[in-house]
Amino acid sequence: MIKVIAKLTIKEDKIEELKSIIPELVAETRKEDGCLSYQLFQDVKNKKMLSFVEDWESNEALQRHMNSKHFQEAMPKIAELQEKEMELSVCTLVI
Amino acid sequence: MIKVIAKLTIKEDKIEELKSIIPELVAETRKEDGCLSYQLFQDVKNKKMLSFVEDWESNEALQRHMNSKHFQEAMPKIAELQEKEMELSVCTLVI
Repeated sequence: MIKVIAKLTIKEDKIEELKSIIPELVAETRKEDGCLSYQLFQDVKNKKMLSFVEDWESNEALQRHMNSKHFQEAMPKIAELQEKEMELSVCTLVI
Repeated sequence: MIKVIAKLTIKEDKIEELKSIIPELVAETRKEDGCLSYQLFQDVKNKKMLSFVEDWESNEALQRHMNSKHFQEAMPKIAELQEKEMELSVCTLVI
């Protein structure tokens, strides 16, 4: 299982716009083969900080996702709303 | 449900030492009331980057954890092994 943590820092005035783009990306992603979990969380204190927390069956499934139409279309839109670059961590379980 | 993402950056030569401290902390934590999930992940490319990803039933459960003996004892030990400060994000689900 592959865990992905993608931490976004969104411009204060673009948070709602981000939330309007995400549902379609999430709906399409959750249909993908090998997508075990795909959720977006928001920091309770710093509303600009949102994190995707994702579980993928395999690295192949994750690569398919990153090459998918819905992901490729969403990324540039999300990038425009960011205050700084996304921090991406692709991880495996230690314990 | 409260999601906690705690990103650690550990000194290269202290990663194994960290992994020796964690099992006891994890075992005790998973017994706690309101602990739904408590896992440690390691970045596949940057081995110094490890992230706790935790699910808590409530903020009260999380506060009890942060006041627990096993957490209070583990934190200073972990702090000594860090290259830079832990990045903690306490979050709620957006979607």
